Amino acid sequence: MDTLFTNEYFMQIALNEAKEAFHKGEIPVGAIVVANNQIIAKSHNLTELLHDVTAHAEIQAISSAANYLGAKYLKNCTLFVTLEPCQMCTGALYWSQITKIVYGASDEKRGFKAIGGQLHPKTEVISGVLEQECADLMKTFFENKRK
Amino acid sequence: MDTLFTNEYFMQIALNEAKEAFHKGEIPVGAIVVANNQIIAKSHNLTELLHDVTAHAEIQAISSAANYLGAKYLKNCTLFVTLEPCQMCTGALYWSQITKIVYGASDEKRGFKAIGGQLHPKTEVISGVLEQECADLMKTFFENKRK
Repeated sequence: MDTLFTNEYFMQIALNEAKEAFHKGEIPVGAIVVANNQIIAKSHNLTELLHDVTAHAEIQAISSAANYLGAKYLKNCTLFVTLEPCQMCTGALYWSQITKIVYGASDEKRGFKAIGGQLHPKTEVISGVLEQECADLMKTFFENKRK
Repeated sequence: MDTLFTNEYFMQIALNEAKEAFHKGEIPVGAIVVANNQIIAKSHNLTELLHDVTAHAEIQAISSAANYLGAKYLKNCTLFVTLEPCQMCTGALYWSQITKIVYGASDEKRGFKAIGGQLHPKTEVISGVLEQECADLMKTFFENKRK
């Protein structure tokens, strides 16, 4: 049954989180943390609701997963996030020593690749999972904002 | 009476926060946010207590100041922090568009200067305020840990 738990399977759940953000008028980014195929944290961007620039989906997911584990290092954990992490989230992921990051859409302006952000050398990165769906949600959000 | 409110005056308060962290066995970093010479947020590193890598003094101070202001952008605010911000905190400060950052000791390994972190172009940076005291506290902490 392990074939059920593909990167696409988990990214779809992160994407559902992003859609929750979308419906709240937040920039639509969602994230989950998975350990042994179990989802231990789920979150979406809440910067507007909380008036807090640190309330990115990833930061909340890292805090929530660490709280669940009772440990600050996210070993044997994978973060699925719909958008390439920014400098802040990359720094948080660095400190967490997370095992794997899987992201959907690229962020060519603020993503860690563009700004030269540093991930932990132990962290594996996979990109482009459900990329089009993740990118389309962002595009629709910003198009609606401009209307 | 404005001369009372020097960078050293406020850094001493951030340093007192760092000492609180020290006594809790946390890496001794303290931070405050000041607006119009009023302290609107005070915090110290709590990563061990909270099992949370995101609980750096700066992240907590940013969230707390934004909560106080009811606004996510920290305009006309100054962050005083005893140590040069890391990649994560630099990213958070970038998003906050904070007006000024004053820090004490440099962090030549993980500070934003070493890793090429990006602050907001509007943000002014002053370094080296009570540098020796801030650095000595860190040094003592790590020397004690090695004993």
